[in-house]
Amino acid sequence: MATIRIGLVGLGKIAREQHIPSLMGDPRFQLVAAATTSGASPVAIPVHATLAEMIAATPDLQAVTLCTPPQERCALAREALDHGLHVMLEKPPGPAVQQTRAWIAGRRVRKAVVTWKEDVRIWHPGQSWIWQPGGLGAFDAGINALSIITAVMPRPLFVTRAVLHVPVHRQAPIAAELALADGAGATIDVALDFRQPGEARWDIAIETDAGQLELRRGGAELHIDGRPVAVPASQEYPRLYECFAGLIHAGGSDVDLAPLQLVADAFLVAHRVEVEPFED
Amino acid sequence: MATIRIGLVGLGKIAREQHIPSLMGDPRFQLVAAATTSGASPVAIPVHATLAEMIAATPDLQAVTLCTPPQERCALAREALDHGLHVMLEKPPGPAVQQTRAWIAGRRVRKAVVTWKEDVRIWHPGQSWIWQPGGLGAFDAGINALSIITAVMPRPLFVTRAVLHVPVHRQAPIAAELALADGAGATIDVALDFRQPGEARWDIAIETDAGQLELRRGGAELHIDGRPVAVPASQEYPRLYECFAGLIHAGGSDVDLAPLQLVADAFLVAHRVEVEPFED
Repeated sequence: MATIRIGLVGLGKIAREQHIPSLMGDPRFQLVAAATTSGASPVAIPVHATLAEMIAATPDLQAVTLCTPPQERCALAREALDHGLHVMLEKPPGPAVQQTRAWIAGRRVRKAVVTWKEDVRIWHPGQSWIWQPGGLGAFDAGINALSIITAVMPRPLFVTRAVLHVPVHRQAPIAAELALADGAGATIDVALDFRQPGEARWDIAIETDAGQLELRRGGAELHIDGRPVAVPASQEYPRLYECFAGLIHAGGSDVDLAPLQLVADAFLVAHRVEVEPFED
Repeated sequence: MATIRIGLVGLGKIAREQHIPSLMGDPRFQLVAAATTSGASPVAIPVHATLAEMIAATPDLQAVTLCTPPQERCALAREALDHGLHVMLEKPPGPAVQQTRAWIAGRRVRKAVVTWKEDVRIWHPGQSWIWQPGGLGAFDAGINALSIITAVMPRPLFVTRAVLHVPVHRQAPIAAELALADGAGATIDVALDFRQPGEARWDIAIETDAGQLELRRGGAELHIDGRPVAVPASQEYPRLYECFAGLIHAGGSDVDLAPLQLVADAFLVAHRVEVEPFED
């Protein structure tokens, strides 16, 4: 199969830490250009100010990955699709999802507890877009947990209650609690917090009629009935590009709206409380 | 066809003004009971405190309409469905929707302007649930406009920008401005306001490459290129029950998520501004 000529839009933290290394290590792709308004590329590729300029200047560009803040992504995706490009937009669930899903099958989930707490100053330094309208606040990290829980639970989830803690003069929540339900008796309590000092907690505990399962460290650790179970090493972003290449060659698409739908519904039904101001 | 034995859940303003008269005038239905915690029924039917009690006390109940505030509807709908009942949950678009849709077909929409402004003290007296989480605020009326615009526009709409005006100490907006787009060049500006003094304005103006159309008074008046066009008299709620009876007999269902999806997305991306306190 021919190499796919791909460009990146946005060269921020996630582009540098995940997308560029994954693409450089993947023979299916050739990273040929980037578009960004904020700085140079860490690898030797032409950098353009806009997606339009990148498209105009890059013959045979076939695909783009959008690594910008969420607010701009819809317009960029449409622009790229209108030019016939393949588009990747991601928030991948962690490893161990398959194992967890298989374990849950045949069990009845009673309760799940999702704890997604980290220090925003460490994990999202200077990312002021997080606090702006559409920036999602603590959901920017928490949506990863929602990706996992919606992927492993056998039935669709819906929001029954939400509390958003929004710093004075900010638009997006620094913390949130959600109650989710699956309509079959399972309840899922979700606690998101960007004010966690020290070590981050990215944990999901699932209690069923036949044992319990814990995903810790974002899914890097799996415990079943208290015993650790081996999990394949995290290959999130390389795996994403493997899937992307497969979809491009098959002319397919893969869209998962469930996690973002839960976020929108949480904003819709939320009780919003003001908390102390937050400054980066 | 046998008469459908139906109960109402909630006996507030919309139940009294629309559902009860529509059901009393429809030979396909027999209104046999109601559930409410707030007052007696204006017609001679048994009134129960809860849906569960109504179900237990009403042999051969076949269907229910939920006329409660939105916050409780999901749980009530599930409870009713779990008992094998047919469920109606509505926010009907006004008349003239078919005519408008037919007129738009074959034209290219450039711009639409939705103006939905009314005095909340007149139209929603004492409805304190409107201001609570999930109560939707000005969207409680405005979702009618979104039902119409999503029904008449030929392509799906999405929210590109939203500003919510929320009174201090309230959870839901008293006014909102949205910018919607259809991805094909049309822009839809929506202005919702519950602070409109005097006559309400429920207007939608649509500008195309071949003329313009105006729906006024919630769709009761239709003007094409400045000239009035005849619209069938409003039969919203009787028509709803005609549709409901048809669906029940056919074993079908009809769900339109598009308007509420726009509301959730508006809350998700919104810039929220505090405005002066509102007291009923």
